[in-house]
Formats: sequence, C-alpha cells, structure tokens
Amino acid sequence: MNYSQLSKEELRQIYDLQKGEYDSLVAQGYSVDIARGKPCNEQLDISMPMLAAEGIENMPKSYRNYGMLDGIPEMKKIFADMLEVDPSQVILGGSSSLNLMYDTIQRALQFGVTGGKPWNSAHVKFLCPVPGYDRHFAICEHFGIEMISIPMNEEGPNMDLVEQLVANDDAIKGMWCVPKYSNPTGITYSDAVVERLANMKTKADDFRIFWDNAYVVHDLAEVSDHLANIMVLCDKAGHPNRVYQFASTSKVTLAGAGVSCIATGKDNVKDILSHMTMQTISYNKVWQYIHYLFLKDMDNVRAIMAKQREIIKPKFDTLITAFEDSFGSDSGIASWTNPNGGYFITLDVLDGCAKRVCELCKKAGLTLTAAGAPFPYGIDVNDRTLRIAPTFTSDSDLIVATRILTCCVKLACVEKLIDIKVNAN
Amino acid sequence: MNYSQLSKEELRQIYDLQKGEYDSLVAQGYSVDIARGKPCNEQLDISMPMLAAEGIENMPKSYRNYGMLDGIPEMKKIFADMLEVDPSQVILGGSSSLNLMYDTIQRALQFGVTGGKPWNSAHVKFLCPVPGYDRHFAICEHFGIEMISIPMNEEGPNMDLVEQLVANDDAIKGMWCVPKYSNPTGITYSDAVVERLANMKTKADDFRIFWDNAYVVHDLAEVSDHLANIMVLCDKAGHPNRVYQFASTSKVTLAGAGVSCIATGKDNVKDILSHMTMQTISYNKVWQYIHYLFLKDMDNVRAIMAKQREIIKPKFDTLITAFEDSFGSDSGIASWTNPNGGYFITLDVLDGCAKRVCELCKKAGLTLTAAGAPFPYGIDVNDRTLRIAPTFTSDSDLIVATRILTCCVKLACVEKLIDIKVNAN
Repeated sequence: MNYSQLSKEELRQIYDLQKGEYDSLVAQGYSVDIARGKPCNEQLDISMPMLAAEGIENMPKSYRNYGMLDGIPEMKKIFADMLEVDPSQVILGGSSSLNLMYDTIQRALQFGVTGGKPWNSAHVKFLCPVPGYDRHFAICEHFGIEMISIPMNEEGPNMDLVEQLVANDDAIKGMWCVPKYSNPTGITYSDAVVERLANMKTKADDFRIFWDNAYVVHDLAEVSDHLANIMVLCDKAGHPNRVYQFASTSKVTLAGAGVSCIATGKDNVKDILSHMTMQTISYNKVWQYIHYLFLKDMDNVRAIMAKQREIIKPKFDTLITAFEDSFGSDSGIASWTNPNGGYFITLDVLDGCAKRVCELCKKAGLTLTAAGAPFPYGIDVNDRTLRIAPTFTSDSDLIVATRILTCCVKLACVEKLIDIKVNAN
Repeated sequence: MNYSQLSKEELRQIYDLQKGEYDSLVAQGYSVDIARGKPCNEQLDISMPMLAAEGIENMPKSYRNYGMLDGIPEMKKIFADMLEVDPSQVILGGSSSLNLMYDTIQRALQFGVTGGKPWNSAHVKFLCPVPGYDRHFAICEHFGIEMISIPMNEEGPNMDLVEQLVANDDAIKGMWCVPKYSNPTGITYSDAVVERLANMKTKADDFRIFWDNAYVVHDLAEVSDHLANIMVLCDKAGHPNRVYQFASTSKVTLAGAGVSCIATGKDNVKDILSHMTMQTISYNKVWQYIHYLFLKDMDNVRAIMAKQREIIKPKFDTLITAFEDSFGSDSGIASWTNPNGGYFITLDVLDGCAKRVCELCKKAGLTLTAAGAPFPYGIDVNDRTLRIAPTFTSDSDLIVATRILTCCVKLACVEKLIDIKVNAN
C-alpha cells in the first residue's frame, strides 16, 4: 500500500485508526529508550569473568608503575591484528576512543600535524558523510570547525563530491568516516571508495581522515563485511600519514571501560607521542593487561563477538520484521536499513515527518535519538532520518518500542499527507 | 668542616682523596636510577589484592555501561573525604591527574573559564613556585605560557611577591602549587600562605590556582602536616572558583593505574563538564568501583599509606644519614631537606655545581633528575638544586647511590672551590 496514492478519505480513516491506537499507547504510560547505542546487560555479562583477572600474577611488575606511554605490547598486538596494521603503528589510550579523537583534533588545531602549521591559524572545514555519528559532529561544532555534509550512498560517501572538494579547498583539513557498519546506516565502504580515499589529491597537504573503525568486529551477519585496508592503500598511494584510525573494546568488553587505540602512520605516531608525553605519563597499563588476559587473541575476540551477535541479532530482527509487517516495501512513508553489523538501524520516513515522529513517540513514552542528530548542527534538511538503537532494550520493551514507533510513523506521515492534500485543494 | 674556609692545599688533598674514591666507583660499572618519583615494587604489592576485585558482583550494572561523566558516587565520596570537600565538587577522571591538569589548561586557553574570554586571546603567564614539579612547567612551555619563578621559603611561595604580581598584571592567569609535601622541597604551605592565596586580589578575574594535592595522604612522619583547606577559605573570601584541586591514587594504589580527580567550585564543575561531555562519554567506572572496593574509606586509605611509609621511610633515612655523615651541618657545600612526606629530598649544593654533580654521577652509573629540571625552562640560575627520588630503588642500590652521590658532590664542589681560590690569586 502506497500511502501517497490514497485518497483524503482513506487517509482520514487510517488516521483515526492510528490515533485510537496511539491514545491507548499513551494511556499505558510506557517508558522505553532506544536512543543510544549501548550494549545490554546480557552482552556485558559475557565480559564479567574479565574482572577476575585470572593470570594477573604473570603481569610484568613494570606495568604497575609509570611509563610505557604507548601502552603494553600484548594489547597493541591484539589491536594490530584487529586493524591489520603493524604494532608499531598502534598507540593505546584510556577507555575512550572518542577522547583520542577529540585530543587528536585539539592537537592538530593548536600545534598542527607532523610539523605543519596549526590548523586553527585559518578557518578549518571537515567533510562529514551524512547521516553520521552525532558525537563526531559535536566535536567539530565545539571547536568551531565548519562541517560540509557529504551524502552517503550504498558504497559509502559520494566520492565524486569528496574528490572535487578536497582537491580545491585547502581549508578542508579533515574528514570523518565510520567505514564499517557505518553509524547509523550500517553501510560498509566499498573497495573502490576506500581506494579513492587513499589516492585522492588534496589541496591541503596536512589533510587527515579520521577513520573511526568503531564496529570493526561487530558483525550481525554470519560473514563479516569486507573492508579494504585503507592504511595499506595510503602507503601505496604515497600518503602514509593520511589516516588516523580509531578503535576500542567498549563494545567488545565493557562500555566506557574498554581499551582504546589509535593506529596511524609512522610520522603521526611520533608526532602524537611528542605531545602526549606532556599530557600524561602513561595510560592504565594494568587495565590493558587485564584486557589482554581476557581477550587473548583475535580468534577469541571473534568468539566473544559471536556470543554478542546471538544476543543482539534477534533485537534487530524484531524491529525489521515489525517494519516489514507495518509498512511493506512500497508504503512511500518508511524505508529502513537491515545492517550486517554495528549498532543501528536507520529509518527514513516521509520527508518533513522525522521530528514529528520523535515528538509523538516521546509523548507515548518512547525516547528516540533526536531527529536531526545524525547531521551536522543537528539539521536534517529533509527532516527524514531516524536512528534506532535496538541493543540496550529488553526484548519485551523492544516490542513496546516497535508498537509505539510504527504507530507514530503512520500517524505523523498520514497527518502530513492529509495536510498536503488539503493544501493541494 | 666548612669547605670554603679550607686552604687550597687542604682542598687539593680532599680532591685527591675523592678522585680516588670516584675512580674506583666508576670502575665498578654501577647502574642506579634515582631520577623519578616512582613507588617501589614492595609498595605496589600492597595493592595487588585490589585486582581480585572482591565484591565486584555488587557493582551496579549501569557502571558497566556508558554514562556518569563525573564518575561513581562511591569513589567521589572517598576523594571528597580525602580533600575535605563536598562530593558535588568532585569530578573523577582516568588514571592520570596530570592529564586532567593538561586538559584544564587546554580548555582555559581555548574556551576560557566559566564564560570568560579564551586565555589564549592574549599573552598568558603563570606563577611557578621554585623549585617545583618539572611536568607542570613542561605543560606551560608546551602551550607557550610564560612562567614567572616565585622563590619558595619555609612556609611556601613568597607571598609578598605573589600578591604584588597578581594584583598588577592581568596576563597572570594561573599559578601552580603543590601545597603539601611540595615537589621537590617537601614543604607544606603554612595557614598564613593558604589564607593569603585565597584572599589576594587578582587583576585577572579569571585567575586560577592549580592546586596539585598530589601528596595529600603521603606522610613520612607519624603525624601528618596540617594543610589549611583552601577551598573553604576561597569560599569565605568570595572566590569560590579560584582553585582547581587535583589528586589521584597513583601513589596510593598503582602508579599510572589509579583514579584521578579534580575538585573545584560549583561554576567550574559545570563549566568543565560542559566541555568534557564533548571529549568522552565517561571515564572507566569499573576501575573506579574496583578502587572503591579496595580502598573502602579514608581510614583504610590511611592504613594503606602507613604500610607504604614503613617501606619508604627507611630509604629517606638512608640518604639523610649519609648526608649528615658526609657533610655535617656546616660544610657550606651541601644542605638538604628532611621532609615529613612526599617523594623527594632536595639537595642544594654549592652554587654552580649542580650540573657538574649530575655529570659526574652519570659517568659513575647514577642517574639523577637533570639539574635544572625543577625550574621553568629547565634553568636553575644558581645551578644549585638537585632533586633526589629515593623510593623506587632497592635498599642495596640506594647505598650505592649515596656513595656515588656524596662523593660526586664533594668532588664537584671542591673542584669549584679550588677554581675560585686559583682565580682569586
């Protein structure tokens, strides 16, 4: 059923039906939150044995003391294997990769990169594939970096546009990428896109890609999406320091209590450490070692992630099945992603309806990520895109969430269509 | 024996004697390091039971997930009791208080404090009591902040000078203080000094004191030095946001793997969190909880510190006894502190000899903190002050260290005195 082809009367009937359903949902006084990409308790339970720190007596005594700014070799090895880089390219951080990203941008603004001019000696712009991760955009806004939206397609960011922009504007110093199971669309960049990112000519010779590989091992399908190794391609293309790659175990072990890392070219590593040594003596190497004891190696990391998949895949399925049942494939008011990994489903509704859906949901007790959040400055010009985070919520609450959400989408879109038809008269 | 009153011939005799001793020490091929204030293995062993995380099953499940930017209440309470402030004034960080200091200065430079102008919109100066902590000065130098040395006396920084400077120069935005068992002199600020710091008029209305209370519970004597509560005094004086206070458990539990905090006025707390929320979602709350399980409360913290004192007090005594035996009280070439707490002994040698002592020690296999390090820009204009860190070294190595050190002090100073006498002729 394509809603746009319905008559005003048919729409009014649907409206009345959904309004009745909506009022009864509101009356229930529900309180459900699917706003943030947080792991659920069952996922976190998997890593609780880590806290027994079995084998800690084998930890080198020096790990309990100051020093080793770049982290312990055991954990660097695991990240190097995970990201397919050399351990010498890895610097371990504290529990937050976001913090590493923030610090990296701050340093670049204040000190420049690898001996270049401080970025903030002139106006700075970043390319931001959209929809994207709200916290990336928040960092840019905080630092006064101008954000240029780049539409995402099935293969990743629109590379024709990216290449044209970076080739002609030396104010463009950076680009955000979540290359695998992108937040929130779930798209994995194609080989061609990664290749073009590695090879493109940039007017700014201190241009950097912030490659937030947050979901590198976070598969929802049996087979992991293939992501080309951008750092190898950059090396080949003669741009060995183009990429800062970030990852963490926040969604492997414990959220907000993982180990983070940055992996990057040799000159960048040296540059970062020269500043970082002013900032701290070392990050928490004991926590790094406790992680190493639990994670062991990449085979074991994959086994942990398989257990997590068993827990969260059904949650994605619940939502997607509900969307299929409620809207079908040609409603014209809703389309959604069915990602192979990551933490989000993107739900696109009829243009001009996303904010209204949020508002209706909120009144019915369902908290969504604010409409617009996945866009720079919080502005979705089409007012279309909703980010859904199904992982944290219990199965029963998720069923409530789908009922409220599908009802509110219909209600908001039918309201809009009636308006359009009224105005057309 | 006052060396300056000896004849050239007497000095020459001492020189020959010490040179013989020195050559035999060099021949031994020793390798001992007393450069950094690191806890020794026996101190760190005290906290190893922490890693069993006994009681972790009682941890609220939400601590394993994102959120709680300011940290968990259990650990905030311990720091609040330690620093005699309200828990609402405490923000917990990662494992490094230095990192919190760096970030606080970076934010002030870039964004200003509590709504004021960014500090880096004009030239910035900091007051630096000397001798002081080299890493504080390194942060200033890194950010291009001009450092003004303030001599320390028995009661703390020279307050006449401090008051005069801050009253007349609005470029002075900050002041470093290690108010208890100061690094490296061991001095604890007197009540009068703290009172004057809280009450003094500053030309810059966004002036801040960086109160690095690194050694707040790190006593070497039976009775802890009294330090007045600057935050209470600032409140009374109408300057509730004058002080950023820092502390950590790095030298209570594990070095580089503790929990850090910042304690400050209400407006500062709000201001800091408004920026910090861009930088990270939360610090490691699981680690904070593991700390809480082990530390329990301030009585237990004091019991842990008493155990540490038993281990490190004899090391301080070894050095001080050796200094007394080697130099006595009126040598005119060496005087030293006998601190009630902290991690350092300051050894002042004859003016113009500190660098030479370091050089001689190095050749004999003893690494000292570089002469000059406790001063801004690494420059000790008197070339007089050496910072000795006795805690990390084993007892047997410490005996070697005292032999090398006392010999090199005598050698360097006698060289200098002979030179002076030769030039006077």
